[in-house]
Amino acid sequence: MRFELTLLGTNSALPAFGRFPSSQALNVQENHYLIDCGEGAQIRMSEFGVRRSRIRQVFISHLHGDHVYGLTGFLSSLALLGREEPMEIYSPPGLEEAIRVFLKHTGGLSFPLRFIEIDTGRHQLIFEDGIIEAYSLPLVHRVPTSGFLFREKERPRNMRPEKIEAYHIPYRDIPAIKSGADYVLPNGRRVPNEELTLPPPAPRSYAYCSDTAFHEPLASMARGVNLLYHESTFCEDLREQAPLTGHSTARQAAEIARLAGAGKLILGHYSSRYKSLETFLREAREVFPNTELGLDGKVFEVPLEREI
Amino acid sequence: MRFELTLLGTNSALPAFGRFPSSQALNVQENHYLIDCGEGAQIRMSEFGVRRSRIRQVFISHLHGDHVYGLTGFLSSLALLGREEPMEIYSPPGLEEAIRVFLKHTGGLSFPLRFIEIDTGRHQLIFEDGIIEAYSLPLVHRVPTSGFLFREKERPRNMRPEKIEAYHIPYRDIPAIKSGADYVLPNGRRVPNEELTLPPPAPRSYAYCSDTAFHEPLASMARGVNLLYHESTFCEDLREQAPLTGHSTARQAAEIARLAGAGKLILGHYSSRYKSLETFLREAREVFPNTELGLDGKVFEVPLEREI
Repeated sequence: MRFELTLLGTNSALPAFGRFPSSQALNVQENHYLIDCGEGAQIRMSEFGVRRSRIRQVFISHLHGDHVYGLTGFLSSLALLGREEPMEIYSPPGLEEAIRVFLKHTGGLSFPLRFIEIDTGRHQLIFEDGIIEAYSLPLVHRVPTSGFLFREKERPRNMRPEKIEAYHIPYRDIPAIKSGADYVLPNGRRVPNEELTLPPPAPRSYAYCSDTAFHEPLASMARGVNLLYHESTFCEDLREQAPLTGHSTARQAAEIARLAGAGKLILGHYSSRYKSLETFLREAREVFPNTELGLDGKVFEVPLEREI
Repeated sequence: MRFELTLLGTNSALPAFGRFPSSQALNVQENHYLIDCGEGAQIRMSEFGVRRSRIRQVFISHLHGDHVYGLTGFLSSLALLGREEPMEIYSPPGLEEAIRVFLKHTGGLSFPLRFIEIDTGRHQLIFEDGIIEAYSLPLVHRVPTSGFLFREKERPRNMRPEKIEAYHIPYRDIPAIKSGADYVLPNGRRVPNEELTLPPPAPRSYAYCSDTAFHEPLASMARGVNLLYHESTFCEDLREQAPLTGHSTARQAAEIARLAGAGKLILGHYSSRYKSLETFLREAREVFPNTELGLDGKVFEVPLEREI
């Protein structure tokens, strides 16, 4: 029952110091989602063992090149590998024309693309499958930009096996009880659901916030998230410059994590003017101790509260 | 007086085993030219110390993604670095629309682009500056494709310093003599140019042939070239498949090198079905001993025949 984030690229616009531009892969119970797709993302997938053929949805935060220039290569490689299954691409408007015109000249794909435009001004449900829901997170950048909140769907409650035996509950009644129903015994006595079941483990969640200036409403949209990736393009030495370019400092990222009550903060999208990342980590941890540096190839897991 | 080729990517369409898709940088006397621009080319440039800001011409062989998907990222990064100087892009038709539409959505550039379309059916001069001439090489692939032959311009002849002294030749007459003129002494005697000068070192040359099926006319177009890069997508085990896909085997690449009388053959554009490259090298060397494997990051130099 995996919930696992793999960082494919963690630098900002200029790739530098072995750090590729933004891209991440999220694996929730073997359902695979791609988040942004900077240049070289497919190369990183093969280096880091991400099963690219399993990806069915791509979520693009905005149309700056360092978040999207790897997309044509990723799609073309899937076609070379014989993919037939459609690919859904969620992004701000404009991406469809860019990709389709490019592919028109460089050769078509073996599978259909479906583009879904995001309203970057609204926080709303944009996607769901049997496993997760994905929400847009309006960000404050120089072009229309959306972060993403991924949350596992609520699971059914867990039956307590000893109660099945004690009350001789037939198999056909179990789905209703797991959904929250009480059970009525043959003698008419009602056994309350709370006695028969345990609550399911809490749904796990991940919020991706890049690129954005410090934007306090994000904290409430990402309230209680297990993992928070928040861009930290700059350290405090460039705090003045950060909002002018639509970016944040590591300390501001930590401030959002603290206000949101996040489980863990991951930093990333470092300006290529910084070779060493120690200052990012130190400044963020002063505000939010459970911060880690995002680095290409690093994997972050959220375990279930308990086995189910 | 450098003539130096750096391989940025040497795999075919699917990047694999640490090999990036096709891209190369040629440095002739500190003039820098980019040849193809597969995904990740800019990342390789920074890894291998190629001075990307010095590049003024890009030569694109054809519009398959593995030769061109790094171009938007490369150009955008130059813009981020503040470039103002124009960039010239030589390619088969179609690239301009693809790049301009993509850039329209992902943000403009700080410098002008100039696209020059190549007639992929003709072997002709397509570019010259003060240092080199570049010729198109018609290739046989599934889409319009051109290789490139880069050749240093003829240098002026070298004065023999002892003759300047012996004949008291004034400084103002030297340029004409270096261009081939005889010198007439005050007494009317004519000193033939051959006595006054030495021939310049031979112009150095490099031919890039990718992607192509075996195509014998290439050998005469690249006659006597110092360095020949010829694609070798397959080994002999797939010799039948090679022409069907518009590609060559290593042995066929070697055959072209042998017929052309090339100085050295560089292999590349390996299919990702081959992890080890030993068979490529062995099969090519049976036909053309001075063959080397192209590998990402490898640098090939052509020294001048002698110092000038």
